[in-house]
Amino acid sequence: SGSSTTSVVGLALLPVFAAGAWLGTVRLIPAMAPLLERAGIAGVDLNKPGSTKKIPEAVGVVCGLVYLVTLFLYIPFHFDSFLLNSDKRDDFPHEKFVEFVCALLSICCMIFLGFADDVLNLAWRHKLWLPTVASLPLLMVYYVNVGSTWVLVPPFMREWVGGETINLGYLFYVYMSMLAVFCTNAINIMAGINGVEAGQSLIIAASLVILNIVLSFMGQSDHHLISLCLLLPFCGVTAGLLRFNWFPSSVFVGDTFCYFAGMTFAVAAILGHFSRTLLLFLAPQTFNFVLSVPQLFKIVPCPRHRMPRVNARTGLLEPSVVEVPLKSTSSLGLWCIAVARMVGLVRVVESTDERLVVTNFTVINTVLTIAGPMHERNLVMCILFIQVVCSVVALALRFGVLFV
Amino acid sequence: SGSSTTSVVGLALLPVFAAGAWLGTVRLIPAMAPLLERAGIAGVDLNKPGSTKKIPEAVGVVCGLVYLVTLFLYIPFHFDSFLLNSDKRDDFPHEKFVEFVCALLSICCMIFLGFADDVLNLAWRHKLWLPTVASLPLLMVYYVNVGSTWVLVPPFMREWVGGETINLGYLFYVYMSMLAVFCTNAINIMAGINGVEAGQSLIIAASLVILNIVLSFMGQSDHHLISLCLLLPFCGVTAGLLRFNWFPSSVFVGDTFCYFAGMTFAVAAILGHFSRTLLLFLAPQTFNFVLSVPQLFKIVPCPRHRMPRVNARTGLLEPSVVEVPLKSTSSLGLWCIAVARMVGLVRVVESTDERLVVTNFTVINTVLTIAGPMHERNLVMCILFIQVVCSVVALALRFGVLFV
Ligand SMILES: [Mg+2]
Ligand SMILES: [Mg+2]
Repeated sequence: SGSSTTSVVGLALLPVFAAGAWLGTVRLIPAMAPLLERAGIAGVDLNKPGSTKKIPEAVGVVCGLVYLVTLFLYIPFHFDSFLLNSDKRDDFPHEKFVEFVCALLSICCMIFLGFADDVLNLAWRHKLWLPTVASLPLLMVYYVNVGSTWVLVPPFMREWVGGETINLGYLFYVYMSMLAVFCTNAINIMAGINGVEAGQSLIIAASLVILNIVLSFMGQSDHHLISLCLLLPFCGVTAGLLRFNWFPSSVFVGDTFCYFAGMTFAVAAILGHFSRTLLLFLAPQTFNFVLSVPQLFKIVPCPRHRMPRVNARTGLLEPSVVEVPLKSTSSLGLWCIAVARMVGLVRVVESTDERLVVTNFTVINTVLTIAGPMHERNLVMCILFIQVVCSVVALALRFGVLFV
Repeated sequence: SGSSTTSVVGLALLPVFAAGAWLGTVRLIPAMAPLLERAGIAGVDLNKPGSTKKIPEAVGVVCGLVYLVTLFLYIPFHFDSFLLNSDKRDDFPHEKFVEFVCALLSICCMIFLGFADDVLNLAWRHKLWLPTVASLPLLMVYYVNVGSTWVLVPPFMREWVGGETINLGYLFYVYMSMLAVFCTNAINIMAGINGVEAGQSLIIAASLVILNIVLSFMGQSDHHLISLCLLLPFCGVTAGLLRFNWFPSSVFVGDTFCYFAGMTFAVAAILGHFSRTLLLFLAPQTFNFVLSVPQLFKIVPCPRHRMPRVNARTGLLEPSVVEVPLKSTSSLGLWCIAVARMVGLVRVVESTDERLVVTNFTVINTVLTIAGPMHERNLVMCILFIQVVCSVVALALRFGVLFV
């Protein structure tokens, strides 16, 4: 069927809708921030010494609302030729339409869940199984519309696997539903300094937009175009959010935005058939997740906040630390610390017979450990630079595999 | 196509899923109520003299979550024959599947909006256009799948119209999208005493379940079965909620539940092709809405709360009143009061040269005006009895038209 189901008018209007999403976000954030503050969903920025001003949190809820409205309004234009021409109505491509609607359903559920988390502080177990359930309709659509669970084997593994492709069977569906859980949480734990959540999300989304545009020109158009339609308005709302969330932040994004961003990436990757390539673009988040595992699973003690701390005297950020009592920490925990220290990912600040004081296990702290104390704006630039490098490498690898 | 796309296994499991939804709600409400209380989403029950206990609000959010999870898990069973049998996968009924997904998308959006309203207190203008936008995908599905805007003319109007059916054209779409706005708000303003929101919703949903079962046995099966699949789990969560919301309430349902219920009715009616009949079932809410118009549009002064007030001495509920300054009230406003008083819908409690004191313009107050002060439990029984009578009349009329 190729590009036959996609409307040229719709695609031409897509940048207009994305710009509208940007404008809507920029207009609505100042209007809704006072509502959030009044409801008590606000907090002090801990990295601004001496500041006691309450900053509204969970502003991602505005982005989510604007995003949903934008796509609701866009969808009819995407299918305009079928809607306007009554002869073609019987050929309406339900199988494409349902992909859009399932995508929005999964995303809407995650925005709702994220907002509920910001307001209510849900338990960890809910955060893990709810995204899995929310991805069910999408997996059903993938099963019915695509069904193929054959995946390309990377060149260096082909000899070992014994072929260029391999059938992962139902494991591929397990992978896709875990991707939804992973993405939502991976963005959420690479957070805590002004602009880092929205910044990394914007860079990832923009890279995926480039990926989709290039691949759709190379012929696999329909599924890349749907992915594009989901990502471009996302870039719009995220750019709008970044204007207020950039250093010094006047709003915080909240779990709402992180869940929203993560689910949008997962959905765009599943419908665009690049659910494995996505992990290349999420390399910093994946690395950060792996590095965080000892603390997330309480093998090494985990404080409530792991973001860097400002030094009130210098005004620079320094890595935050955690106290590790030697008696109550398992040998596995101590081994994790030793390995991470050897590789240079953490630094032991203090060491006595009774306890260690170690920098927290996150990429943001590692950057500060290696490069020394830094101004908050420089730190976020540094993290975003790493994201840009990873995105460029991911694009090069993806296009490289195509031409190999 | 008839019933060919509906799985017998799926339908047989539907009551099991509805029971599961009930159980999930009954289990989850006690677990999540403390989270709502801790987040400050709680208030004192004004009709319990002397009580200062804070009662969690917006518990509808739990119902909404359980409802969505139930339907996500149910949908694959509804289409199991297509999913399990790989020969039939190419015949997968996308046009039916997309109806489910659009329905859930609209409902999920409204749960999210309702929760945002409970937490943030959104402005009236947002409450009006957001449900309209949320119903767009559903209208698109109706347009593509059904397309017919011919409606049956009631017998007594046939001579005047000049036929048994009439084509409403695009006005029918305007009607359907207004139905979504109307239902969400109509349930929300017939509220304020223990158990009335959940009680009326349960009775309406149960009546619509009966309507769908009878009509699907009479041959128009596919669209009535989808409507049934949306309504039966709704009955489950609402029955679960009512257990805690019944007099004396230990939880309040919030805007979240009212929006959720209203949108579920609108969606079930649109997909079940009974969007006009629905108004018969919503007769009490429609009457209450019309009665409220003078206050909603500020023609007559409108206090923040219009629910009845308890008389601390007798323990009985009495109609709440509003003070109407004669100088600043328009002649239209005074005329509204005079007409409502003449028909017996409101009572003038006090009348001086400067002001009137009138009972508020709601059905609940009218019942108290006519029947005298009443215990809260008796009042809610009275309102629910009216709902039962209206539902029975609506069923009789609907089946009557079929046989005439
Ligand atoms: Mg949280
Ligand atoms: Mg409200």
